[in-house]
Amino acid sequence: MLYSFLKTDIELIEQELANAVASNAALIQQASESLLKAGGKRIRPVFVLLGAKFGDYEIERVKNVAVALELIHMASLVHDDVIDDAELRRGKPTVKAKWDNRIAMYTGDYILATALEYITKVEDLSAHQILADTLVEVCVGEIEQIKDKYRFHQNLRCYLRRIKRKTALLIAASCQLGAIASGADENIHRQLYRFGYNVGMSYQIIDDILDFTGTEKQLGKPAGEDLRQGNVTLPVLFAREDPKIRKKLEYVHEHMPKAELEDVVRLVKQSGAIERSYAVSNCYLEKALGTLEQLPDTRFKKMLADLARYMGKRKF
Amino acid sequence: MLYSFLKTDIELIEQELANAVASNAALIQQASESLLKAGGKRIRPVFVLLGAKFGDYEIERVKNVAVALELIHMASLVHDDVIDDAELRRGKPTVKAKWDNRIAMYTGDYILATALEYITKVEDLSAHQILADTLVEVCVGEIEQIKDKYRFHQNLRCYLRRIKRKTALLIAASCQLGAIASGADENIHRQLYRFGYNVGMSYQIIDDILDFTGTEKQLGKPAGEDLRQGNVTLPVLFAREDPKIRKKLEYVHEHMPKAELEDVVRLVKQSGAIERSYAVSNCYLEKALGTLEQLPDTRFKKMLADLARYMGKRKF
Repeated sequence: MLYSFLKTDIELIEQELANAVASNAALIQQASESLLKAGGKRIRPVFVLLGAKFGDYEIERVKNVAVALELIHMASLVHDDVIDDAELRRGKPTVKAKWDNRIAMYTGDYILATALEYITKVEDLSAHQILADTLVEVCVGEIEQIKDKYRFHQNLRCYLRRIKRKTALLIAASCQLGAIASGADENIHRQLYRFGYNVGMSYQIIDDILDFTGTEKQLGKPAGEDLRQGNVTLPVLFAREDPKIRKKLEYVHEHMPKAELEDVVRLVKQSGAIERSYAVSNCYLEKALGTLEQLPDTRFKKMLADLARYMGKRKF
Repeated sequence: MLYSFLKTDIELIEQELANAVASNAALIQQASESLLKAGGKRIRPVFVLLGAKFGDYEIERVKNVAVALELIHMASLVHDDVIDDAELRRGKPTVKAKWDNRIAMYTGDYILATALEYITKVEDLSAHQILADTLVEVCVGEIEQIKDKYRFHQNLRCYLRRIKRKTALLIAASCQLGAIASGADENIHRQLYRFGYNVGMSYQIIDDILDFTGTEKQLGKPAGEDLRQGNVTLPVLFAREDPKIRKKLEYVHEHMPKAELEDVVRLVKQSGAIERSYAVSNCYLEKALGTLEQLPDTRFKKMLADLARYMGKRKF
């Protein structure tokens, strides 16, 4: 496993995440714990730790950044569940399905506020500014995503801007803030930001491809669910170039029968859109690897490259 | 008007609030602007400014704190609207009624993130910590409030803890952070925190009284709306001591006919609960005035006292 080197420190962070969501309020405690148990790849903490290896690495200091970033990611998942009417996430009932939308909203708020408590332990003020700016962009992205649903005529730029805000900026910030927390030089943490941005773009495109190519078991939800929810992703943008597919796409709606949705998914897969999407993802992956060239040659740099490649190639 | 002295600086803050919610995203812009136009008393900015007068007052520095605190208050109003199914706030359609719950949630998130951008301009790290801790408490309070709805057997401590989190802590933080941003001594900003806490408690109790004694015109919503939503407030806690009223209270539900609700409101008013609630509010007001004694004698201290008295006496 790629992460084995960081295993001890990631376990420490896992422990701290459990502490972070421990609350006197029973409702929050239960809601957050089920979220914590649902797991996740802890990608953001790993990037924070690796970014920090380019400075004066001290786990006690870096830990706060890693926990903050993962909590922000968790908070956004909780709020996404409110939005997406998703009954399942990673195969487990969502906070929303188990409780209700109102509790889910405030649980998300609570987790975000807790993230802020962690980040304030970092003494570098620029870290706070970067995080606040990132959060603003993420929120704008969430709203744009709602606005852009089922708008099958939107352009590629619109999609790229959305996944930048939705995914890439937070991974970019993870790499950069790890480096800042460990006192790395500005030219290093800026480069790490660019690396993270490109990895994030590559990663999200893969995620959007998997909505078509993954199995229900792999995804924890049926294939085509993103499409059903009206998310216009890269495979959709490519597939719509065929007028016949475009017509079918424009008929997609939330309560579409399963068989019809599967038909659209099949058409998108046959259109060559998947291969073209992989090519775009690869392009970002290559850019990410390129940004690493200007960083000092260490084994952590090699790990970042391996991680980027792994994320850009994963099949589920 | 009490605020006349601060008029210029409050206008500056009003201007900055408009800048703050100006966004490229049209949906956010519209949602936030309608919120801005609905106005509000800007109580938190006034407390920030007055708190700052106990240090080295520089409006350009203090402004960021005042804007951040008001934005946090606005964000919580937006999320409360999602929660409360309130169709009106201050007599105007709420963000939720005009758009929908999902946009309202992300608009709230966006406004909160913008608040963080402002607070990060303050260089004192303790300001960030205080704000993050306050936000966590506010969120816990929001969730407890949902949990405690229609629980007419809850005790007084439960109510006091809830209004502390809901209102008092943010006013306390306003006073304290104003002082911190202007470099006031620790014993001064801690005292201002205590002052703000007690003013906030007094103020929220008055607010809870007005749900019974105010007119629809004064409140911007029908009297008894809080009760209909299941908020167990101080007048309710006192009135339930009468077994006859308690029985009626336990029958309160969201879709209760107007005439029945008005009947319960009338009974609460006749029970002496209003007078007893005013007495408790007054008690907090007196405590607030007491905390001022240890502060240096300036005209700003007198203004704080006047403001506290005004907030503790208001009839709507």
